[in-house]
Amino acid sequence: MAEIALVTLDDIRTAATRIADQVLRTPLVATSWGEADRPLWLKPENLQVIGAFKVRGALNAVGALTEQERARGIVTHSSGNHAQAVALAGREYAAPVTVVMPETAPEVKVAATRALGAEVVMVPAAERESRTAELVAEHDYAYVPPYEHPDVIAGQGTIGLEILADLPDVATVLVPVGGGGLLSGVATAIKALRPNVTVLGCEPELAGDAAESMRLGERRVWPVEQTYRTMADSLRTGLGELTWAHLHERVDGVLTVTEDAIAEAVRVLATRSRLVAEPGGAVTTAAYLSHAGDLPAGPVVAVVSGGNIEPDLLVKLLGS
Amino acid sequence: MAEIALVTLDDIRTAATRIADQVLRTPLVATSWGEADRPLWLKPENLQVIGAFKVRGALNAVGALTEQERARGIVTHSSGNHAQAVALAGREYAAPVTVVMPETAPEVKVAATRALGAEVVMVPAAERESRTAELVAEHDYAYVPPYEHPDVIAGQGTIGLEILADLPDVATVLVPVGGGGLLSGVATAIKALRPNVTVLGCEPELAGDAAESMRLGERRVWPVEQTYRTMADSLRTGLGELTWAHLHERVDGVLTVTEDAIAEAVRVLATRSRLVAEPGGAVTTAAYLSHAGDLPAGPVVAVVSGGNIEPDLLVKLLGS
Repeated sequence: MAEIALVTLDDIRTAATRIADQVLRTPLVATSWGEADRPLWLKPENLQVIGAFKVRGALNAVGALTEQERARGIVTHSSGNHAQAVALAGREYAAPVTVVMPETAPEVKVAATRALGAEVVMVPAAERESRTAELVAEHDYAYVPPYEHPDVIAGQGTIGLEILADLPDVATVLVPVGGGGLLSGVATAIKALRPNVTVLGCEPELAGDAAESMRLGERRVWPVEQTYRTMADSLRTGLGELTWAHLHERVDGVLTVTEDAIAEAVRVLATRSRLVAEPGGAVTTAAYLSHAGDLPAGPVVAVVSGGNIEPDLLVKLLGS
Repeated sequence: MAEIALVTLDDIRTAATRIADQVLRTPLVATSWGEADRPLWLKPENLQVIGAFKVRGALNAVGALTEQERARGIVTHSSGNHAQAVALAGREYAAPVTVVMPETAPEVKVAATRALGAEVVMVPAAERESRTAELVAEHDYAYVPPYEHPDVIAGQGTIGLEILADLPDVATVLVPVGGGGLLSGVATAIKALRPNVTVLGCEPELAGDAAESMRLGERRVWPVEQTYRTMADSLRTGLGELTWAHLHERVDGVLTVTEDAIAEAVRVLATRSRLVAEPGGAVTTAAYLSHAGDLPAGPVVAVVSGGNIEPDLLVKLLGS
């Protein structure tokens, strides 16, 4: 692992300065429904204007490009929150953005990405990466990937700085893990400043590849046929080499949760903390509700990473 | 009106200092769904730990009492958000709290108030005020009313200071109005510092007594048989003399909204801004959606005052 350079605290501090005026400085929201020994605070990244933390990494990565690079244009591929994050970042910097999306992407996500000014290129799902590579080759576009990039990780890490600033006596931080960019960044910030704070990833059992990787001490990526079983669509991705290197070095463990626990967490967040979370954003609350007894004593922060849930699914989960 | 002393900017600044460590400093949340000429920001007071802005006024009023007064005890009557606010304030200051509630109060609200350490006295609805007065006479309790009190109004006014600090170029502020404590406080802060900012109350047509009062230039209170027609249970109350004096002097107008517009606003807040609002908390968004064209050009802030909605009603509104 020694050959992979990990993101540093300085990288994250640079990111924090760069994106400060462009993202919502989310507060920590106290809950009334945590355990007395382990009071629970929420970090509501679902309140970012695109409904997810992804703006932080995208804005940092686009902001770190040179003016010349931005002028040539930016490309990414995503059918989810990252597409809108890069589109928003491009708009902030007046840089043209192209997003490669699978033809199966929901119309609402395509429309939202276009509304932020990006050009959307629809391709068969299998051709997403190759078409992105072609666009990079043809136009010399800068590629901003969803997690496997130091500037993206550093941007997500700004959440860790904010948690420590707002709750210096935090004992445990719970972070969703899909591709691992958010967890890598938050763990880097927190372990650099407060190595005794426990940092745990959280993911669905049905997409439990990060937990398996941590258990085995080597990166495992599950086939999409398996990870697509979870309703937490934002957490179906596997770890990259760069994010795995961060997890291996800096994360204390990964908790898994059932689909029922995720559904219960979506309900609890909506009815008791008035926050709409997507299933992937609710896994940390699900982990708290399922595993609180196993956590260290002291204050717990759960990062609620996003709130882009289909209204029909929200109604179904609230009504069940 | 000259004989009624109005709350001052200094009162609100004192309140802000007093409650700073006890309430959530809510951010302004940008929306992607406002009009270009009148971008919309939300002030999510539904994220306060009891789910409503009421903690601000209650904490300021209880904090302004002497230690001797707090030691004797505090009393209020409420079946809604104010009951939990006073219970929480009493707990913060280790002061005993008694809440008089009507026998018709939902069990969940009774339980939530007890969970915060208050003693709940259940009485027939018609005896709420008389029983409260008896408790004051018997025990020399300090009475903290829901809105008709300068310290309560000053506490709610801290929201106005925060809006101006976060968005100095705001053009219009929309505030729910029931009893009028929140609107009185916010208007006081904003008009003192930025008299050109337009401050508008918002209420359901079916409980449109504040709008009628403003139109006529004199306080009108509608009978509960009328105001109970709206689903916005937190806005069924009429103005008091003190709050009316503030509205008359400092508020630019009151907008009314239909029940359908309130339902649509609850949906939009949940699905596009990931916030669960109660109907009374959604009236400002409803007013924006219904009347944006009539507002001055420039940034608009809508105060989302609370999120304590019955889960069944939330599901019904989201599904409709």
